[in-house]
Amino acid sequence: MRASKTLIATVKETPADAEVISHQLLIRAGLVRKLASGLYTWLPAGLKVLRNVEKIVREEMDASDAQELLMPVVQPAELWQETGRWQKYGNELCRLKDRHQRDFCLGPTHEEVITDLIRNELSSYKQLPANFYQIQTKFRDEVRPRFGLMRGREFTMKDAYSFHADDDCLKATYQRMFDTYTRIFERLGLDFRAVIADTGSIGGDASHEFHVLADSGEDDIAFSDSSDYAANVEMAEALPPAGERAAAGQTMEEVATPNCKSVSDVASLLNIEEATVLKTLIVLGEADEAGKQPLVALVLRGDHQLNEIKAEKLAGVGTPLTMADDEQIKAAIGCSPGSIGPVALPMTTIIDRSAAHASDFVCGANKDGYHLQGVNWQRDAELADIADLRDVVAGDPSPCGNGTLSIKRGIEVGHIFQLGTTYSEAMNATVLDQNGKQVTMTMGCYGIGVSRIVAAAIEQNYDDKGIIWPLQLAPYQVAIIGLNNHKSEAVSEACEGLYQRLRNQGVEVIYDDRKERPGIKFADMELMGIPHRVVIGDRGLKESMVEYKGRRDSDSQDIILDQIFDTVIEKLAQ
Amino acid sequence: MRASKTLIATVKETPADAEVISHQLLIRAGLVRKLASGLYTWLPAGLKVLRNVEKIVREEMDASDAQELLMPVVQPAELWQETGRWQKYGNELCRLKDRHQRDFCLGPTHEEVITDLIRNELSSYKQLPANFYQIQTKFRDEVRPRFGLMRGREFTMKDAYSFHADDDCLKATYQRMFDTYTRIFERLGLDFRAVIADTGSIGGDASHEFHVLADSGEDDIAFSDSSDYAANVEMAEALPPAGERAAAGQTMEEVATPNCKSVSDVASLLNIEEATVLKTLIVLGEADEAGKQPLVALVLRGDHQLNEIKAEKLAGVGTPLTMADDEQIKAAIGCSPGSIGPVALPMTTIIDRSAAHASDFVCGANKDGYHLQGVNWQRDAELADIADLRDVVAGDPSPCGNGTLSIKRGIEVGHIFQLGTTYSEAMNATVLDQNGKQVTMTMGCYGIGVSRIVAAAIEQNYDDKGIIWPLQLAPYQVAIIGLNNHKSEAVSEACEGLYQRLRNQGVEVIYDDRKERPGIKFADMELMGIPHRVVIGDRGLKESMVEYKGRRDSDSQDIILDQIFDTVIEKLAQ
Repeated sequence: MRASKTLIATVKETPADAEVISHQLLIRAGLVRKLASGLYTWLPAGLKVLRNVEKIVREEMDASDAQELLMPVVQPAELWQETGRWQKYGNELCRLKDRHQRDFCLGPTHEEVITDLIRNELSSYKQLPANFYQIQTKFRDEVRPRFGLMRGREFTMKDAYSFHADDDCLKATYQRMFDTYTRIFERLGLDFRAVIADTGSIGGDASHEFHVLADSGEDDIAFSDSSDYAANVEMAEALPPAGERAAAGQTMEEVATPNCKSVSDVASLLNIEEATVLKTLIVLGEADEAGKQPLVALVLRGDHQLNEIKAEKLAGVGTPLTMADDEQIKAAIGCSPGSIGPVALPMTTIIDRSAAHASDFVCGANKDGYHLQGVNWQRDAELADIADLRDVVAGDPSPCGNGTLSIKRGIEVGHIFQLGTTYSEAMNATVLDQNGKQVTMTMGCYGIGVSRIVAAAIEQNYDDKGIIWPLQLAPYQVAIIGLNNHKSEAVSEACEGLYQRLRNQGVEVIYDDRKERPGIKFADMELMGIPHRVVIGDRGLKESMVEYKGRRDSDSQDIILDQIFDTVIEKLAQ
Repeated sequence: MRASKTLIATVKETPADAEVISHQLLIRAGLVRKLASGLYTWLPAGLKVLRNVEKIVREEMDASDAQELLMPVVQPAELWQETGRWQKYGNELCRLKDRHQRDFCLGPTHEEVITDLIRNELSSYKQLPANFYQIQTKFRDEVRPRFGLMRGREFTMKDAYSFHADDDCLKATYQRMFDTYTRIFERLGLDFRAVIADTGSIGGDASHEFHVLADSGEDDIAFSDSSDYAANVEMAEALPPAGERAAAGQTMEEVATPNCKSVSDVASLLNIEEATVLKTLIVLGEADEAGKQPLVALVLRGDHQLNEIKAEKLAGVGTPLTMADDEQIKAAIGCSPGSIGPVALPMTTIIDRSAAHASDFVCGANKDGYHLQGVNWQRDAELADIADLRDVVAGDPSPCGNGTLSIKRGIEVGHIFQLGTTYSEAMNATVLDQNGKQVTMTMGCYGIGVSRIVAAAIEQNYDDKGIIWPLQLAPYQVAIIGLNNHKSEAVSEACEGLYQRLRNQGVEVIYDDRKERPGIKFADMELMGIPHRVVIGDRGLKESMVEYKGRRDSDSQDIILDQIFDTVIEKLAQ
């Protein structure tokens, strides 16, 4: 492509509403433009990046025997009423009426439409497994669209849905999709983790999210430094500390802690680590037959955070997890929340694994203004129920048994999910099995945020000059910059020659032939993130030399004009 | 592709709601499925056809320096209010509200969005011309969606918009798009005509429609048998008949025509051709200063149809064209509409060119129950205003001066249009010209109905066995049918060998490896319209022979197994 023939829409100013770097650079590099809140137009260079993502996704999906089809954006309400999602789905579902006042929605996802199709088209277990995907425009009416492409309202998604006669078959396809996603994100050149998202109702690893690691991510990902284990922090198991609990060394005694409201207050007053202070949280337990919820105490180390998902799953704890209020605590224990402790506490008490490993610890004395120090389990307080109650922290041993955990932020770009029969049961999607019996199909679904990947790739690859595209994503792989090419025939000729040779080789190359100052061309090509740059000017040509620079290189190299083609081809192959 | 790995969704029954052949065959061949009225899912084989169309459109648009971008489906109302189309556009525009009760619509077309983009991005005449296109999902809420993909509600369209500093530049790009469209439809292998659609306000040929010729088309296209002239019947000029008008041979006399209400009644009663009877239609003329509309008479041959578009454009005729009612006619002439004639008619009378060429004709006597015969212009009736008032008919001389006109039905699949400044003026889209002066950009727009082409191609290419795809459109170019391939190793091996060799050559090939009876495989591949078919069975293989048949061939040919690959490659190149 000649730069003079395409819209180079770079801008100097960072747009006021762009909070994250990808949003800023997408606008500044002229890749997208905002039409309205959460709605973006893809400009020519941006669309090329989007298509590059689509191409890799499509090739890998095809290679895994998934079949591409294309379902409508506009969907009739009737199907959503069958599954009950018409009522359940909130305001994110954009509902509309046609001219005959019939109800429709803009598809945020297509489970209903594909299940309707498949229940009509497939009738025998012999036709299974079958896996269908589309790359398509979706709409979700986000309450607060922001971060540019990261949380838009209209976006491009690859969604796939698989159908099976039994769960073993589903699991096999799920594993195949896991492997396919891994290949896709590898080919995209992204630093990513496949993250255990939910153990779900089917059991096993029923759901994984694929996250691109980047500081601006909205999720905390815990991953092992020695294996491919990764999980959302909420999902990662905190293993019991290794070794025996240290023997008691102190005797328990009461200490005045006036005005201490928090663990950190107590730790500073007593000049000890927060880890030595145990905190006790009071929640509502499971309701009895009369509907009354007894109180339950949860004990954690002062430096750890309660994991509500884990707590909620424990027998005896009420759902949803609800903290007891000050009055309930006062009535049951006789003190305020900041002074509770497990010694002689008159209720079911569940102790976190790490808290259970503590000795000579400090805790509330169940009396306002006082704590106990030198407390030890079993000797001073009952150690009955032990459970994993907390979020993991960096340095924890990995639950997989290998290495220790690091925690980084991640941007979710993919999600695979063993749906089971949720949709097929509601919509009566059955096939005949080997014995001629109707069985409900079991389903998987597999999403990739195609347009979001463009933003996530930028969050992971940029510097102060702009974007640094991974080669596979770049709108152009090579930029040829002619210095005063419109005035120098020698420069123009050398540029044209290289441009044509690279194009003939199938390389996506942009020749910046604009009548612009060199500085503008350099800045634009760097801002746009073109991985390889060749600069051709009169001064170099006098000695038959041109300049090569990789986007991440700090310095450029002089290359003999006759060798530049081979050099570029070599760099592209690396 | 192996047939066992993809959804072959052929059906025997013709769906009850499918009126036209393309709709029937799209369903029967398993290419699309209806989700709701006017909404279709593209099944895997159908999507391949759609993508083939997209590919050709994209390649030719790129080659003509048009730049691809992608605008949102959902558009804010504000832009449509700027051009006034929010109010003017009828119920076809699907309006919706987001969660904040802001107004949006689903884009049926993107003039507003692109003009908004360009007024912000371009500022100088030096950046022009610029031509942007997208291939995108559109939505039009048709009052009566029908004919399958032909008139759906959600569909795929290629829309392009060009911007210019002056009309000469617009005309040059318009011509380039005309040539590009011609190449596109040629590459698609379709019998089409570029049709003059409207002479518009800019003058010259400001709009062309591209029509695929097919009996099921909704438009009548008149085209020359000796040139590339083609026009909508409404737009084609009816030239004055050649030669002098014949001299008067009869004297004028009144003849009783009781109960004759129509030209055909009069012609049968008098036993003459309808062409000999002139009919006179009374319409409302242009309003005077007081708002009164005088009556105007239009005289045509009895066998010709009034062309309302032509009539409306004449000086003195009111817009929109309105027929006078019986009362107005009675009051002005003293008779009912069936008995009017141009002899001594007390109003402006405009005579069609062909009617003006008549002699010894019959016409109403301006007296109920009577006609005049042996009437001649000038002698009996004034011949003042002569104009082209009628639709052309087959056999008319072509207005281009070469050949005579044929009339066929056409399906509109493309439309190019010199928009001028309609949108840019309303939206204040300007650039600086050579003199640093703000000028309003002038615009062109260029549409192709991508999904409609799939249907139109079928309307033009089918037989009683199913679709016959032009090679460039076919979901698969070659079908390999194995006879009992699941039982015979020799057959399976020969099929696999050919399948792999063709695939390696980049040929789109489907190997029907299903455990189905041969008859089902033959029928499916014919119904799906695969252009080339190779059948491999045990009986042939004994003599190292296989069978080849082109989809349009009546008989198959025996080919030596060793030569089948070369034969197929040769056929594909033809």
